[in-house]
Amino acid sequence: MTPLCTQLKLSTPIVQAGMVWVSGGKLAAAAANAGALGTIGAGSMKPDLLAQHIQKAQGLTKNSLAVNVPLLYDKAEEQIDTALRLGIRIFITSAGSPKIFTKKLKDAGAFVIHVVATPDLAKKCEAAGVDAVVAEGFEAGGHNGRDELTTFALIPQVVDAVRIPVIAAGGIADGRGIAAALALGAQAVQLGTRFVATQESSAHDNFKQAILRAQATDTMLMMKRTVPVRLMKNAFYEELKAAEEVCADKEQLLQILGHGRARAGMLEGDLSAGELEIGQIAGLVRDIPTVEALVARLMEEYRTVSRAFPVFPKV
Amino acid sequence: MTPLCTQLKLSTPIVQAGMVWVSGGKLAAAAANAGALGTIGAGSMKPDLLAQHIQKAQGLTKNSLAVNVPLLYDKAEEQIDTALRLGIRIFITSAGSPKIFTKKLKDAGAFVIHVVATPDLAKKCEAAGVDAVVAEGFEAGGHNGRDELTTFALIPQVVDAVRIPVIAAGGIADGRGIAAALALGAQAVQLGTRFVATQESSAHDNFKQAILRAQATDTMLMMKRTVPVRLMKNAFYEELKAAEEVCADKEQLLQILGHGRARAGMLEGDLSAGELEIGQIAGLVRDIPTVEALVARLMEEYRTVSRAFPVFPKV
Repeated sequence: MTPLCTQLKLSTPIVQAGMVWVSGGKLAAAAANAGALGTIGAGSMKPDLLAQHIQKAQGLTKNSLAVNVPLLYDKAEEQIDTALRLGIRIFITSAGSPKIFTKKLKDAGAFVIHVVATPDLAKKCEAAGVDAVVAEGFEAGGHNGRDELTTFALIPQVVDAVRIPVIAAGGIADGRGIAAALALGAQAVQLGTRFVATQESSAHDNFKQAILRAQATDTMLMMKRTVPVRLMKNAFYEELKAAEEVCADKEQLLQILGHGRARAGMLEGDLSAGELEIGQIAGLVRDIPTVEALVARLMEEYRTVSRAFPVFPKV
Repeated sequence: MTPLCTQLKLSTPIVQAGMVWVSGGKLAAAAANAGALGTIGAGSMKPDLLAQHIQKAQGLTKNSLAVNVPLLYDKAEEQIDTALRLGIRIFITSAGSPKIFTKKLKDAGAFVIHVVATPDLAKKCEAAGVDAVVAEGFEAGGHNGRDELTTFALIPQVVDAVRIPVIAAGGIADGRGIAAALALGAQAVQLGTRFVATQESSAHDNFKQAILRAQATDTMLMMKRTVPVRLMKNAFYEELKAAEEVCADKEQLLQILGHGRARAGMLEGDLSAGELEIGQIAGLVRDIPTVEALVARLMEEYRTVSRAFPVFPKV
C-alpha cells in the first residue's frame, strides 16, 4: 500500500480517470467495487445529470467515489455543490486555478486532487492547500498542458517539487506502467484510455473498437499553441492538421472544432467527424474486459513486474 | 543482470549516449570503466578525429566501448570502417535505414544497435538483422522522431513488437528512471543529458552550468514537421519559435539553423546564439560529478527503488 491509497481507502493504486462522455456512474461504481478510485467525469454533465450518476454509483457500491470537475465550465460550482450535497468527499479538479475552490472543498471536509502538467503548478497546488496532484504527461489523451512534459520527465520532477502525494497519468495501460510510475515516485496512477475500452464505460462501441485497432502512432496532440488536445487520427484530425499547417489562428481552429464533436465521436460513435480523445498508449489496448477482470489483471501484472527486478551486484 | 548486459559485458544496465560535441574518448572510457557502455559520438567527428578518440578511449579502458554513427552524414561509412579497423565491435546507428550497414557490420562480427522512435521501425530493425534497439522518446534531447511517442508509451509497445532487446532512452537521469524503464520491459537505459553534466564530458562549462540551472519546462521540441530537435530555450530558440509561428518553410528554418550552431553552443559555450541540445529531464540534474561517482549513485538509487515496491495484497 501507499499512504495515499490508505487515506482514500483503496485496495489498489489505480484511479479510474473521470472523462467526458465515457465515465458515468456505471463505470465509476465498477472501478470502486474493484478496489480502484471510481470517478464520475462531470465535464460533460449538467448538474441534474451529475446528480443522477452520483446516485446511481452510490447505489452500486459502498467504496470510494470521486467526481472530476473541469473548472473552466461555467457550471463548475453548481457541480461541486451538487456532489457535496450528495456526500461526495473526493474531488479531482482541473483546467483552472487550484485557488478557486480548494478552500470551499476543504471546509466541506473533502479531499482535493488537482491535475497539473508542470512542477510549478504542483507547487501552487500545495500552497493552495490541495491534498494531492495528478501529474499528467504529454502522452495522455484529451486536454493537455502546453509545456509538453512527458510522464517520464514530469513525475520525478513533480515528486521532488512537492510533499503532497503524486498520482501519475498519461501512457499507462498495464501493470508494467503501474510499476514504472511507482518507481518514479508516484503513489498511484490514473488510467483513462484503458478504462474507455471496458464493458462498463459508456463510450460508443465504435469508439471502443477503434481503440482496439489503434497503433502507437495513431494519435497526435493538436492545437498545441491554443487548447492542446490529444486525439485519434481521423477525418476531423486531418481537417485540424491542414488548418494548422497554414497557421490558422485560434478563432479559425475553434470554428473547425465547433460544438458537439466530442459527444459525436465518443458517445455517438462518429469515427470520421467526431473528436476521439485518446492517449498514445491506445496501441497496448487489445480487449474490452469487465472492469473487475481488468483491475485484477493490472494488479497481477504489477505484482509480477515489481517482484522480478534484475539485480546488478556492486562491482 | 539482463541478457543484454551479459552479452555486452556490462556490470550496469547503463548506456552512455554517444552525443555530438560532448562525448569523446575521455567520457566513453570513464563510462566503460564505471561498468556502463561507453560510447563515442561520431556525429561531430571526421574519421581522423574519430580514430584519435577511439585510440584514446582504448588506452584508458579495457571495458566495452561503442561508437554512435548517425547514418545521414556523408562520412558514415568511413566512420564505420575506421571504427571496425580499430577493433570496435559495438555500434549504435541512427538517423537512417537499418538496412544500409547492418549486414556489413554483422559480417565484421559487430553487435548492431539501431535507434528507433516507433514500434514499426523497431520491427524493420529486427527484420534487417539488428541485435538490439534504442527506443528513444519525445522527451529526449537532440534529434527526435516525428511521431512524438514518449518513453512511457513507446517502451512497452516496442518491447511487445520485437524479440530483440530494447534499451530505453529519453527522460532518464536517476535510479528511479532506470527502475521505471526496466519495469516497462527495457533491458538497459541510455542516458544523454545526465552524462553531459559530468566532469569527463567535453561540453563547455557554460553549457554544463546552464543544465544545472534548467527547470523542467526549459526545453522544447522545435521544427516538429521538418527535422525535430529538442533544445534549451535561449535566444536561438526564440528565433526559431518566431519563424515557426508564422509558418516558415523548411528552407527558412534551415537558414536560421545555419551551420555550426551546435558546436557554438555545446562545445564553445555560446548560451545565446548556440544550439543547446538537451532533454526534459535536465530539471533533475543538479551537480557535475565524475562519471564513476555518478554511475555508483545511479545504481544505488536503482537498488533502493527496485527493492522497495509497495505491496498490494489480493482482496
